[in-house]
Amino acid sequence: MTYAELVKDRAPLIHNITNQVVMNITANGLYAIGASPLMAHEQEEMTDIINIADALVLNIGTITEPVFQAMQVAGKKATEKKIPIVLDPVGVGASDYRMRVVLHLLETLKVSLIRGNAAEIMTLVLLKQAGKGVEGGIETDATAVARAFYRRYRIPVVVTGKEDIIYNGNILSKLKNGSPALKQVTGTGCLLTSVIAAFLAVADDGHYIEAATEAVSFYTVASEMAAEKSKLPGSFQVQFIDQLAALTVSEWEKRAMIEVMR
Amino acid sequence: MTYAELVKDRAPLIHNITNQVVMNITANGLYAIGASPLMAHEQEEMTDIINIADALVLNIGTITEPVFQAMQVAGKKATEKKIPIVLDPVGVGASDYRMRVVLHLLETLKVSLIRGNAAEIMTLVLLKQAGKGVEGGIETDATAVARAFYRRYRIPVVVTGKEDIIYNGNILSKLKNGSPALKQVTGTGCLLTSVIAAFLAVADDGHYIEAATEAVSFYTVASEMAAEKSKLPGSFQVQFIDQLAALTVSEWEKRAMIEVMR
Amino acid sequence: MTYAELVKDRAPLIHNITNQVVMNITANGLYAIGASPLMAHEQEEMTDIINIADALVLNIGTITEPVFQAMQVAGKKATEKKIPIVLDPVGVGASDYRMRVVLHLLETLKVSLIRGNAAEIMTLVLLKQAGKGVEGGIETDATAVARAFYRRYRIPVVVTGKEDIIYNGNILSKLKNGSPALKQVTGTGCLLTSVIAAFLAVADDGHYIEAATEAVSFYTVASEMAAEKSKLPGSFQVQFIDQLAALTVSEWEKRAMIEVMR
Repeated sequence: MTYAELVKDRAPLIHNITNQVVMNITANGLYAIGASPLMAHEQEEMTDIINIADALVLNIGTITEPVFQAMQVAGKKATEKKIPIVLDPVGVGASDYRMRVVLHLLETLKVSLIRGNAAEIMTLVLLKQAGKGVEGGIETDATAVARAFYRRYRIPVVVTGKEDIIYNGNILSKLKNGSPALKQVTGTGCLLTSVIAAFLAVADDGHYIEAATEAVSFYTVASEMAAEKSKLPGSFQVQFIDQLAALTVSEWEKRAMIEVMR
Repeated sequence: MTYAELVKDRAPLIHNITNQVVMNITANGLYAIGASPLMAHEQEEMTDIINIADALVLNIGTITEPVFQAMQVAGKKATEKKIPIVLDPVGVGASDYRMRVVLHLLETLKVSLIRGNAAEIMTLVLLKQAGKGVEGGIETDATAVARAFYRRYRIPVVVTGKEDIIYNGNILSKLKNGSPALKQVTGTGCLLTSVIAAFLAVADDGHYIEAATEAVSFYTVASEMAAEKSKLPGSFQVQFIDQLAALTVSEWEKRAMIEVMR
Repeated sequence: MTYAELVKDRAPLIHNITNQVVMNITANGLYAIGASPLMAHEQEEMTDIINIADALVLNIGTITEPVFQAMQVAGKKATEKKIPIVLDPVGVGASDYRMRVVLHLLETLKVSLIRGNAAEIMTLVLLKQAGKGVEGGIETDATAVARAFYRRYRIPVVVTGKEDIIYNGNILSKLKNGSPALKQVTGTGCLLTSVIAAFLAVADDGHYIEAATEAVSFYTVASEMAAEKSKLPGSFQVQFIDQLAALTVSEWEKRAMIEVMR
């Protein structure tokens, strides 16, 4: 069974402490792949919520102090419960505050995987802003960025961009699917982070790298199918949610371009 | 005149203290039926806002302490002003905190109606978690759940699911319209709660049960028409907002399946 | 080069402190015209964020005390940095609190331009509620409202409605494009405010009025093209984002109806 099928079969409950811009598309995208989304960020209920959750997503896109505190409570409990924690350091280079938040989470929690664009991940390697704004947009070798990040933090990493790189210190996967239309729609990076969390939630922790690779591949193949219907951003977003729901395992396998290096 | 026509005619101002995931679809859905949505949750302005509002929706989906405090101020004022208050106990079984919040609102305010799925309503009957996560998914007799809730709280209740049950201690309506596609789109339960509030806003309080029944029926018939256009979740959501706006009284009457028992 | 082309060329970073209902459509609409959206409202990072931003949008739609404080920090820094600040006084007549917030921002910051409907702008002239709710809906002469606002505050103003009026005390433009479908979709006013900010971000401050006029014209022409595809609100919203991305300068110039008076 593929991880995509396991997600549909088990409907893992993914708890997202995420930004206000993308909550809606994140919930709809998780439903589309068959997972159960949950969004909450009141500190007082974080322990109870993690008790029923199968994975935790921490996304700092519109982070505030109260939400950061909720992340710490949820992350501590998720670390104890040994469910996957996936971190999305949205725009980490945009402020010293974001950098402090991300470093604190990386230091105090057992983060299972981090997902960002090359600029965000490189910012965490350099400990200062690489590229511009939230979107980054640095031209660099994503493979080198992934390796440098892992060397510093020893945490599996997904670097998304024209090609997507997944690296856990051992296996490096390079994925060549996807559509440029993804960059025109807000939240497609954030949703991918949550989709990865859903795939990790149905995997043994020795197989997170395979589950993450399949998640990214499945997601980017769905984006290609959506872009075949429309490349304009409004229609593309609608089609993308449709294709996340409609994509079959056989269609995915036919299109997936994954290069694995050890 | 149907309540749907009264909503279009009077454009009641519906104040929603609701969760961050569904604010956008709630506003668009209320516009689609001809109501005027308002979202706000700063405690300091709650009294002024209720002064101009025709109904109040309290939805705990991403409840936090400051929002809970705003709910209390708004709810107290709405109780005094005697405008309908509709409560949506999203995922009430997910934490003790949510349970405390909902019980406090039920005890201190004149809640006109509560809307939830069978798991949420049953959780409030049992005072402990029934079913799993936000979505619930318990298999149970929705009619029995509605009756048990009313017996305990003496508050009219809508239990949504494969069939929708509406009960006020006197009249019990069973509605058989709807599409499974609704469950694939986030916020369709929350939006229904706000649509019910809009229908209640144009009804006399002796007729809330009829107005709520028409609201649920109108909403689920629109979902069937949308599902005839597309069952994939991205397209379905777009079509559903379209059909909420386009559905005529005669088309609704032709399709509505309402069974009323006394 | 038109301002629309400059936006595509420079991808200005627009920082939006805006309401929770419209964050998603605002980000997608800004991407569609080629700008880079950023949303954040933690006070501690506001100075850093403004350091990298090209314009600031302040929108009070779901204002709370912490967000108001963030606006003040961001606004002070943006005033020092001399980047455009565009204010959207959403539903300013709905509460005394909103009025105090808006007046404080107008008094303490160098606001470059304000955008609202006639009811909102008139409320700021009268210092009390004109019209009903968030949407306003007063029947009045938008030109007179714009002139009265400017007389009182000496701040350039865009009054949107059936016709859109842009006035800076010197030039008054009257724009006749647009579709009634815009009023059926939440956030179309708020998104316009952010689009204006993007156009201002690529203009010299002596030419804000021309940039704002082009922004409103471009936006309303795109809405006409979308309405030709669908007038139902769900589909219209999708088409509108598509057309914001697809609209060419030549198509815009062919359709634009701008009357400039001095």
